[in-house]
Amino acid sequence: MSEDKYVCGIDFGTLSARAVIVRVSDGEEMGSGVKEYTHAVMDRTLTAGDNQVLPPDFALQYPEDYIECLKIAIPEAIRQSGVKPEDIIGVGTDFTSASVMPTDDKGWPLCMRAEYKNRPHAYVKLWKHHGGQEQADRIVALATERKEPWLKRYGDTLSSEFAIPKLLETLDKDPEIYHEMTHFVDAVDWIVWQLTGNYIRSAGATGYKAMFQDGKFPPKDYFAALNPAFENVVEEKLTAPVGQLGDKAGEITAEAAAWTGLKEGTPVSVGNIDAHVTAPACQAVENGQMTAILGTSSVFVVSGPELREVPGMFGVVDGGLVKGAWGFEGGQSAVGDIFAWFTQNCVPPAYHDEAAGRGISIHELLTEKAAQQEIGEHGLVAIDWHNGNRSILVDANLSGVIVGQTLTTTPEDQYRALMEATAFGFREIIDAFHENDVEITEVVAAGGLLKNKFLMQMYADVIRKPLSLAVSAYAGALGSAIHGAVAAGAYPDVPTAAAAMGKKIPNAYLPNEEASAEYDKLYAEYNTLHDYFGRHENEVMYRLKDIKRAAMSRRHGH
Amino acid sequence: MSEDKYVCGIDFGTLSARAVIVRVSDGEEMGSGVKEYTHAVMDRTLTAGDNQVLPPDFALQYPEDYIECLKIAIPEAIRQSGVKPEDIIGVGTDFTSASVMPTDDKGWPLCMRAEYKNRPHAYVKLWKHHGGQEQADRIVALATERKEPWLKRYGDTLSSEFAIPKLLETLDKDPEIYHEMTHFVDAVDWIVWQLTGNYIRSAGATGYKAMFQDGKFPPKDYFAALNPAFENVVEEKLTAPVGQLGDKAGEITAEAAAWTGLKEGTPVSVGNIDAHVTAPACQAVENGQMTAILGTSSVFVVSGPELREVPGMFGVVDGGLVKGAWGFEGGQSAVGDIFAWFTQNCVPPAYHDEAAGRGISIHELLTEKAAQQEIGEHGLVAIDWHNGNRSILVDANLSGVIVGQTLTTTPEDQYRALMEATAFGFREIIDAFHENDVEITEVVAAGGLLKNKFLMQMYADVIRKPLSLAVSAYAGALGSAIHGAVAAGAYPDVPTAAAAMGKKIPNAYLPNEEASAEYDKLYAEYNTLHDYFGRHENEVMYRLKDIKRAAMSRRHGH
Repeated sequence: MSEDKYVCGIDFGTLSARAVIVRVSDGEEMGSGVKEYTHAVMDRTLTAGDNQVLPPDFALQYPEDYIECLKIAIPEAIRQSGVKPEDIIGVGTDFTSASVMPTDDKGWPLCMRAEYKNRPHAYVKLWKHHGGQEQADRIVALATERKEPWLKRYGDTLSSEFAIPKLLETLDKDPEIYHEMTHFVDAVDWIVWQLTGNYIRSAGATGYKAMFQDGKFPPKDYFAALNPAFENVVEEKLTAPVGQLGDKAGEITAEAAAWTGLKEGTPVSVGNIDAHVTAPACQAVENGQMTAILGTSSVFVVSGPELREVPGMFGVVDGGLVKGAWGFEGGQSAVGDIFAWFTQNCVPPAYHDEAAGRGISIHELLTEKAAQQEIGEHGLVAIDWHNGNRSILVDANLSGVIVGQTLTTTPEDQYRALMEATAFGFREIIDAFHENDVEITEVVAAGGLLKNKFLMQMYADVIRKPLSLAVSAYAGALGSAIHGAVAAGAYPDVPTAAAAMGKKIPNAYLPNEEASAEYDKLYAEYNTLHDYFGRHENEVMYRLKDIKRAAMSRRHGH
Repeated sequence: MSEDKYVCGIDFGTLSARAVIVRVSDGEEMGSGVKEYTHAVMDRTLTAGDNQVLPPDFALQYPEDYIECLKIAIPEAIRQSGVKPEDIIGVGTDFTSASVMPTDDKGWPLCMRAEYKNRPHAYVKLWKHHGGQEQADRIVALATERKEPWLKRYGDTLSSEFAIPKLLETLDKDPEIYHEMTHFVDAVDWIVWQLTGNYIRSAGATGYKAMFQDGKFPPKDYFAALNPAFENVVEEKLTAPVGQLGDKAGEITAEAAAWTGLKEGTPVSVGNIDAHVTAPACQAVENGQMTAILGTSSVFVVSGPELREVPGMFGVVDGGLVKGAWGFEGGQSAVGDIFAWFTQNCVPPAYHDEAAGRGISIHELLTEKAAQQEIGEHGLVAIDWHNGNRSILVDANLSGVIVGQTLTTTPEDQYRALMEATAFGFREIIDAFHENDVEITEVVAAGGLLKNKFLMQMYADVIRKPLSLAVSAYAGALGSAIHGAVAAGAYPDVPTAAAAMGKKIPNAYLPNEEASAEYDKLYAEYNTLHDYFGRHENEVMYRLKDIKRAAMSRRHGH
């Protein structure tokens, strides 16, 4: 290249989208732009419609908000970068995972038609929409009964966050919307459709969240057994060409060029999942390199050369992360969310006063106090299932535990025990991959929890592996830009592009053998309790949920 | 009686002594006086000596402080009452249980000699002094090995709060003090000695806390095996006539008359344990009537006609509560202390602000919020072992547990779960007595927790028995006064005196069958976890304590 070229990456998160313009040669970030979604997440009332009260567990979005991001965040990023649009040679996008919407044959969302504006099932069901839990339960029960082979790819169970339960929920609850839709589109693919005019399903998103495996969906008689009208769901609602990650999905249309300021005809890559694009951004795309995105919850992704069916993993997909390799995924349903819950609900005034007086956050104060302890000095062991367990038990009915409290137990004791619980939950996943021959050679951490150095050292000690660190604060958008560069032909494949454009600090935290040995003792206790409560030795957590549900229904009347 | 006569009762608690003057005919309280101990509890430094730092688990007192109470609280009670000293016909006392001290042959405590002023083992070892834990462990291990029959009277184990471990600790740690003492005196008996000049061991205290059973102590060869110098411990340090409860121990001496303003020659009853004198004060002295003293910790006492060896009870003693019956004791190591720990360590600022704004205590606020819930709505089950388990597991190494936390768990959820845990712990004890043929016909509650009406109703629902309530705020002092009246000959025995002078509100809380049935479900969960953690299915709590001890020793250097 005689002069510098650039790519645009756009990362659609839960509450906002961020666009970056980065240099193709080295990934240097030239400019960025952010736009928050006008309607955010609709989880109480339908604010984009008639403000009706939504059922519990609903989480909807309005797709017009995404178009606004294209119109505001991308022009701002270009403006900040000072780069000429003709020097931007490719575009990549990523989106939250399994956010899905019904559209007509042109990709026009049904909720944007006047007659369906007040119909919740016409909107985007966001990744964390759990309205289809009953449908997910039916899907798993029937697949288990029929011994459906694809169920193993999801660790023998299925989250209600997946696309098919959400679609079956629409058929059950609002059949008119179901029959009216031509496509049930993942937002990962929808945004690419808006930019290029082409509807190409992403290999990663389709495989992980829509039960598309080995080139096919589950069989018709299985779907018919769930609901007779569901028999031809695949042909009727889900069919589209599948594109591999890094492939070109199409080119910027004239309309999209007018929205974004990008040049018409610029190549756009196949869409991807937000957590997964982080892997190339932090140079973790080779087999065995695990990317650990540590935030309110945690996601772990790693590629491997062979298919392995790891019990309790969240999913395994051919080409799920990188073309030509099997992509494995696992996760923890709550990590930072547990620490946030604790500081909001379980810390007394004196601690908040001290933190305020010293101008530090309550998290910083508790971490500082916890860090002064010897390992095990608090006498506690906790379990991190406050939002259920995503891996390796895949069970939303599990809940938190703390053992060992005394009359001298302090807030920092409990805070540290919860930190350790999340580290032990992480190790359970690492161990499960190991035991099932999925090799982990390196762990690269990204996400909001990186700023807690004490926690990062604890993670390295507990998992007994060096932790490398992502560098970019906008790793998602950078990862999308890398895919855009490959789609533009600037690099032959994602790994080569990641080597040039991604960034990480290798081995930023090394495990300390002495600390690891002490943590091993606590992990052994965690592991015993993990199996006792999580593998049906004592089903107290299920019964407590049943008792709770019965109590709630007594309170609110039958 | 031609005109009204009165008795004086003095209740020596952990931090203060309270004297009352009550009318013999009906127990009406005429006046009271209180004195706090000048040196309170010495658990960090020896403030009555050279201020040396004390080892962990020490809790000492200075006996001169008790004499000050005689000099201040009794005259104040007499003054308030307007009663003439010649109309006060008897005196009774009670003391915290197993607070013990070394004295010379005249009962003069060694710590009050100048040469031993800086020797911790010369002081009173308060009931909650746990410096002799290692000695208690050796005593139990040897007795178990030798199959000593008396061990069954203490539920097959022995607390470090008992007298013999404390005495063996003195021999091990400061043999000069051991050899110099003529007597190792329980404060229950020491205070009577000060008032009367007679050293009479109380049947209750000696039996419950000094392993005196069926008229004898354990055999010499057993003691010799613990430490050769301990062989003749009974003859050398523990011998004194044993007096039955309600019997006269002696009469007020000229010196004690000068201290107290009581008339010389006034009869004084044999000493008693503070918790035990509550039984006559609330008319719970018949076989089957359980007195439940519910405070920072809980004590349960009940008499029965036959000896029963209930596994895990705290002790059974012939005449332990009332002459002629077997007195059974059980208890919970922490109840109100758990609620206090929780409010101090686990409740966020907004709750404290709300309570302050409404002028109510944080306990009242949390109780009010908890009371609005349906049973089981919090989805939690907790175990109340924050200070170990006194009954029925008798194990100081156990600790607290909470199961079922989620990201929406509130402070009142956890507070209520802890309340329920204490109720379930109470029920374990009731059930153990039932299963071993110790009949419970009525439960009469006394103590500081009575003011929490929601908790009392919960207790009635959980134990499925009506709760009667003590009336006097000074039930201990009233109970001592009742013993004084019997010693004076005003009544033939303690039950007759209790019927005339004691007070209770019968059946103040009745169990609600619907609530009991709901609590039964949670109790079943508690019970399963109780056995899992408490009966060695998973010894995680022991290992956590070991890990904690090792961590502490790493921190403080080996």
